[in-house]
Amino acid sequence: MTIEVSEVGAKGAAAREASRSLARLSSTVKDRALLGIARDLLEHESYVLSANREDIEAGRAAGLSNAVIDRLFLSHERLEAIANDVRKVSLLPDPVGEMIDMRTLPNALRVGRRRVPLGVIAAIFESRPNVTVDIASLCLKSGNACILRGGKEAIRSNSALASIVREAISSAGGPPNAVQLIENTDRALLGELLRMRDTIDLVVPRGGAELIQYVAANATMPVLTGGIGVCHTYVDRAANTEKAVAVVNNAKTRKYSICNALDTLLVHQDIAEALLPDIARKWSAASVEMRCDEDAYRILESAGIAGLKLEHAAPDDFGHEFLALIASVKVVDSLDGALEHIARYGTGHSDAIITEDYSAAMRFVDEVDTAVVYVNASTQFTDGAQFGLGAEIIDSTQKTIARGPVGLREITTYKWIALGDGQIRP
Amino acid sequence: MTIEVSEVGAKGAAAREASRSLARLSSTVKDRALLGIARDLLEHESYVLSANREDIEAGRAAGLSNAVIDRLFLSHERLEAIANDVRKVSLLPDPVGEMIDMRTLPNALRVGRRRVPLGVIAAIFESRPNVTVDIASLCLKSGNACILRGGKEAIRSNSALASIVREAISSAGGPPNAVQLIENTDRALLGELLRMRDTIDLVVPRGGAELIQYVAANATMPVLTGGIGVCHTYVDRAANTEKAVAVVNNAKTRKYSICNALDTLLVHQDIAEALLPDIARKWSAASVEMRCDEDAYRILESAGIAGLKLEHAAPDDFGHEFLALIASVKVVDSLDGALEHIARYGTGHSDAIITEDYSAAMRFVDEVDTAVVYVNASTQFTDGAQFGLGAEIIDSTQKTIARGPVGLREITTYKWIALGDGQIRP
Repeated sequence: MTIEVSEVGAKGAAAREASRSLARLSSTVKDRALLGIARDLLEHESYVLSANREDIEAGRAAGLSNAVIDRLFLSHERLEAIANDVRKVSLLPDPVGEMIDMRTLPNALRVGRRRVPLGVIAAIFESRPNVTVDIASLCLKSGNACILRGGKEAIRSNSALASIVREAISSAGGPPNAVQLIENTDRALLGELLRMRDTIDLVVPRGGAELIQYVAANATMPVLTGGIGVCHTYVDRAANTEKAVAVVNNAKTRKYSICNALDTLLVHQDIAEALLPDIARKWSAASVEMRCDEDAYRILESAGIAGLKLEHAAPDDFGHEFLALIASVKVVDSLDGALEHIARYGTGHSDAIITEDYSAAMRFVDEVDTAVVYVNASTQFTDGAQFGLGAEIIDSTQKTIARGPVGLREITTYKWIALGDGQIRP
Repeated sequence: MTIEVSEVGAKGAAAREASRSLARLSSTVKDRALLGIARDLLEHESYVLSANREDIEAGRAAGLSNAVIDRLFLSHERLEAIANDVRKVSLLPDPVGEMIDMRTLPNALRVGRRRVPLGVIAAIFESRPNVTVDIASLCLKSGNACILRGGKEAIRSNSALASIVREAISSAGGPPNAVQLIENTDRALLGELLRMRDTIDLVVPRGGAELIQYVAANATMPVLTGGIGVCHTYVDRAANTEKAVAVVNNAKTRKYSICNALDTLLVHQDIAEALLPDIARKWSAASVEMRCDEDAYRILESAGIAGLKLEHAAPDDFGHEFLALIASVKVVDSLDGALEHIARYGTGHSDAIITEDYSAAMRFVDEVDTAVVYVNASTQFTDGAQFGLGAEIIDSTQKTIARGPVGLREITTYKWIALGDGQIRP
């Protein structure tokens, strides 16, 4: 036990130490390191892929599902995609050093805030080895040291990737200890990590609901959570039906396994008869199962659409994140009914209204308490790259630290700087 | 026990409900409510002062110290000062509704962030009843509902003040439930409050170190802590000694019981002999006790300053917040020595360098990891009003949520707004 405990403690201390010089590293060196990582990932492809093959074989022997094996799997194409993402990070503006609100006080003291890194960020993730490189490169660019703790099943792949990243940072003239991979994936060690509030400034869990809950409940330092969304699209009575059908369909079917996909469709009663059959025809073609309340069921049943997967909604189909070709559907009697439903069942991720009614749109925007509120657009746009942040660490459903897409700037902080000439306070 | 539990639960639910309409209340109504609070505090002065007298009498009977009794005490003058502070809050710009970074994406989707209230803020504080009005008015202005839990010894005063605040909000057309005072001050209830993460978006402890530790350790929602600072001023060898003496003296003696007061004076060895006797003469006159390391002690002993309280520093005099007319003093051999000392002993509140050396100033600003870093100025400037934030909730020593002086804007969040015309994601 002593040895395991000291791995987390020792690597935490090394990361903390490295964070001091990393915070002051120039963009030139950081970008050189990022380009080095991209280059070395491809240069050392056979090393990475053979480590990955060992993970895959061990995973198959341990009876992991095909879905997990697929998340684990690396190939030449996947490595190229990872390297390309790292190159993109090198092209983003460096958030560190930006001055905010600099002003001169009446006593000539110049006061402002300078954007600086948080320090040390711990990322807890599951089976996808690309997260190792992804988080390491985003932290490097933003001047944060990182402690990476991935899933046991990916440990050989993660080790290989982390060693390439550390080498590349070192070759570029940066501190290799800025990236620390925890090799021992025991839960006890994770518990210890989550108690290191003097060492770790922020912990980011990336994975399923169970992992997020565990980290949120046990971390003693600030946590940035997200990635779970029960997303609503409300079609108002004043909607343009053509736009409504296109947007609703896109929100569900473009990708259904991501957190910004539509889970619940709310339809105003005045437009339900005109709209629901059109949506159902699209969804029938796309094999989307519709779990409907009484009113919606009645309308769709009488529409008699061939091949439609039509079901009665159970109570827990509302407020449920499906991550599948399933949507719950409810007819509401008013905008207020939609607002109440979302207030009750939403998770504050992404919610949309489809309407041509100005006042309804304004009320929806004002009253829905969610990270991203849409008018006449697909919730699938919730994404850091789409919103101009360049990259995304997570989609936060918190209100503090950062909300919605989290880019580089959102994993920094600021310090106040006061430049004087001998000022004393009266 | 059941009744106590339901007070927190019921008032939490009422605050959450009120927060929904409060978030959309116009600045006009909020400011009218604030001016009403200021007016009613003075109109109902006898009601407040008689409740306060009961607290004072109960406190005397319970043997509270004179210092606590003084913090409890309200008078006509103190009520006027409280009312004036509320009027000042009404004059501040409303942070709610500000649009940040609005941009039009290539697909014509208009995306930006709108500043919105956090929702419900809980404040845990001790014996000063003015905090009730202070926090209530800052939360009201920023559109946040608040749950106030003050000390048992001030409960009658807090009740009277809270009822005036609630009445004034109601008269102005706002939701009175936006301000909730917890009347039962049992610790068990505080524990329950700190577990209400679905109801409370942020908890702010205002008080001594013990209270802050308790809240930080037990809260399940985000916490904003601050108000504790071990503050350093480093006099570099290239300092202008006249400025250095004035700034160092001000940092310690203007007010010594506040968190931004100097605790430790670091002096470069090349300037120590020239500087320390001058500072000691000022501090001797102001009755500041100097707890010195070997080198500083030797210099000051041989200077023979009349009436100087000169002591040898014990190890724990460094990294200690005195809140008293005491300073620890250390001679360092270099800027690096000062940086290392601050990295080891600082609490990240306010730290200063006094120097005319450009490179030394830049290195200090770059390398000291603190909420407010000063060049040639007194650390006593760390204050929201001084820095142009108008008001101050707390001086945060955290890196997340807010750092340094926390004003109205810092207790808000944002939501992303995406205004479209039928956009779907390819």
